[in-house]
Amino acid sequence: MAKKRNIIVGQSGGPTAVINSSLAGVYKTAKERGFHKVYGMLHGIEGFLDEMYVDLSTQIHSDMDIELLKRTPSAFLGSCRYKLPDIHENPDIYEKIFGILDKLEIEAFIYIGGNDSMDTIKKLSDYAIVKGHSQKFLGVPKTIDNDLALTDHTPGFGSAAKYIATSTKEVIRDAMGLSYKRNMITIMEIMGRNAGWLTGATALAKTEECCGPDLIYLPEVPFDIEKFLKKCTDLMKKKPSIVVAVSEGIKTPDGTYVCQMGGGSDYVDAFGHKQLAGTAAYLAAYLAEKTGNKTRAVELSTLQRSASHMASRVDINEAFMVGGAAVKAADEGDTGKMVVIDRVSDDPYMSAAGIYDVHKIANNEKLVPRNWVTRDGSYVTQDFINYVEPLIQGDYQPFMVNGLPQHLVLKR
Amino acid sequence: MAKKRNIIVGQSGGPTAVINSSLAGVYKTAKERGFHKVYGMLHGIEGFLDEMYVDLSTQIHSDMDIELLKRTPSAFLGSCRYKLPDIHENPDIYEKIFGILDKLEIEAFIYIGGNDSMDTIKKLSDYAIVKGHSQKFLGVPKTIDNDLALTDHTPGFGSAAKYIATSTKEVIRDAMGLSYKRNMITIMEIMGRNAGWLTGATALAKTEECCGPDLIYLPEVPFDIEKFLKKCTDLMKKKPSIVVAVSEGIKTPDGTYVCQMGGGSDYVDAFGHKQLAGTAAYLAAYLAEKTGNKTRAVELSTLQRSASHMASRVDINEAFMVGGAAVKAADEGDTGKMVVIDRVSDDPYMSAAGIYDVHKIANNEKLVPRNWVTRDGSYVTQDFINYVEPLIQGDYQPFMVNGLPQHLVLKR
Repeated sequence: MAKKRNIIVGQSGGPTAVINSSLAGVYKTAKERGFHKVYGMLHGIEGFLDEMYVDLSTQIHSDMDIELLKRTPSAFLGSCRYKLPDIHENPDIYEKIFGILDKLEIEAFIYIGGNDSMDTIKKLSDYAIVKGHSQKFLGVPKTIDNDLALTDHTPGFGSAAKYIATSTKEVIRDAMGLSYKRNMITIMEIMGRNAGWLTGATALAKTEECCGPDLIYLPEVPFDIEKFLKKCTDLMKKKPSIVVAVSEGIKTPDGTYVCQMGGGSDYVDAFGHKQLAGTAAYLAAYLAEKTGNKTRAVELSTLQRSASHMASRVDINEAFMVGGAAVKAADEGDTGKMVVIDRVSDDPYMSAAGIYDVHKIANNEKLVPRNWVTRDGSYVTQDFINYVEPLIQGDYQPFMVNGLPQHLVLKR
Repeated sequence: MAKKRNIIVGQSGGPTAVINSSLAGVYKTAKERGFHKVYGMLHGIEGFLDEMYVDLSTQIHSDMDIELLKRTPSAFLGSCRYKLPDIHENPDIYEKIFGILDKLEIEAFIYIGGNDSMDTIKKLSDYAIVKGHSQKFLGVPKTIDNDLALTDHTPGFGSAAKYIATSTKEVIRDAMGLSYKRNMITIMEIMGRNAGWLTGATALAKTEECCGPDLIYLPEVPFDIEKFLKKCTDLMKKKPSIVVAVSEGIKTPDGTYVCQMGGGSDYVDAFGHKQLAGTAAYLAAYLAEKTGNKTRAVELSTLQRSASHMASRVDINEAFMVGGAAVKAADEGDTGKMVVIDRVSDDPYMSAAGIYDVHKIANNEKLVPRNWVTRDGSYVTQDFINYVEPLIQGDYQPFMVNGLPQHLVLKR
């Protein structure tokens, strides 16, 4: 009797709107390629170490379920933030992992995640090679932050960018409708501690019928608050409402996060804890003080990474594709690799799955190139827009039940 | 030659996702009923006093434009927050208004707005009757807050409720995916200073595949923070992630806003101004302190009133209907009235436009009835859900251009 060929898949790190589309791609392709069981580890490698996993055939019963999974935000299997120790630091953990893999007759291990997850793939594949284990380890990229190296972009980014650009258009209209004889400055705070990809995507709101944000500040360029004030003051002479997009991670030239400015007068909460007022909240208070205008801060917060109701069709399809490509690669004998997205053509936009050695990828952070930001650092260039625009195209209409988007949810 | 029959329409107060659908209803019905010119006042009565208006036929060129207008959030004509003085306080303003109306040969004046707008309709219709002017004044309700009396609900509420319930489902999934061996409490802050309609709508997230928020607190019921802590502590024993929805306006039994709690240790910003930390931010800090769990605050902020990309079909259609009904009423000789929505039937849901004397309406605030909140004040009842659920049904697919929802924008 032929040995059973089983496969296991996990999800790790911050959620995105399309991380489950990659899971769907793994499942469907594994079934098509004749894998026997497709296991899902619960809460990534952390849950796996507790032997938490499910047989995905108990969860996914039809092509309809697969379509629903593609439209479900956040990690269907649960996620974790867990970095494996180095092999020499804790060999027992590795013994344990491979013990479970052997018990489940796992031939391939697919991990969907960001930099830490690729580190996991690297360590497990190294260990397998050194110890003579036959399992294959493949990574599938995922992060709204788009900060993974070697891939043209990451699944999850396009949908977050689409939601952010849509919300930016709506916030701009909201502000314009309200501004008459009372000027207003709106500061929108977008996720991105070091990389400004998402904040730059607000520029997509600049369309035939929308002026777009007036200023855009990314963490890649030092933030000069005096010049910022001057820009705002000049703009307010020309129009009653200005909207500024800032990354949460913008810093002054001396390396201080803007959200940490104000020195001793930082927010001390009612319980004596020093809190960071948000970047937008700080700048809104600063501009109110300096200009006398009404200001407001809008934080997109966690909504921007889980808004599957405004996902990009390109993004969902690419997420599905890289999930499937990882299974194919493992099935063909690859290990220690991450699937990447290669941009084949800009116009018309075309992409294809490629594959890279995970040793070249792990722990590199891809930032927005300086020449994709204007010289004075207050906007992104047309090159930036040309790069992002294809990634937000097309929709996946949510399956609406009783007026709300339906999701596929784990049954235990 | 017959006298020209012109009509003017304005928008006032906070934006909604469907206030322009009412404008579209006014325009289309006015044209169908033979009005010559349809003027739009810019920034409501405040702009009108500066003689700021447009001929809407220069803006709306086709049925396609009308459909686009129905999908455009925020006030197309610009809004204002301006309350007319009493007639005896400043008769000159009234003289001026009627002077402009006569000049433009206006027969009917339609105002889309909330309580303050209905006050404007009341004063102008009273003045016209007293002074023998022939113009008709009609109000069209609008507010996401749903706090207008005598109408079953207000246009704008259903779409905001739909967006809030959708975002709540997505936030719950986001939190669940992340919670493993690290408990997390998420506090969502929803608009509503005095009325909890929108916060209660988070209960719609409770569906077959979503547990919904764990606790819901409305401003109508005094908020007991000790009991709240106890509830959270008990819930955390049962599940790793809990999500709590609170109105921005919840108050302790002695009338203190929760966002003002903490006494002298309120947030003093870097510029020495005392700031209110948000309600959710306060409660998240409180729970972190008391329970030691990870907590986070999510403020839906201005997004919830301008998210036309997740508008309710019922809401857009009703907003259109009440706009048209106001024109019809004016055309048939009514004045000093507000159009209302009457609920004809719950199952199947059916509604119709009714009409009320605006003197009965102005400045009454409709709150959530106490018996639509559970006895202990930590959730809404099935009656509440039955009331809201029909209002979020159906979609109006946005017109997507280049991956983003398209809006109709005023050309000057």
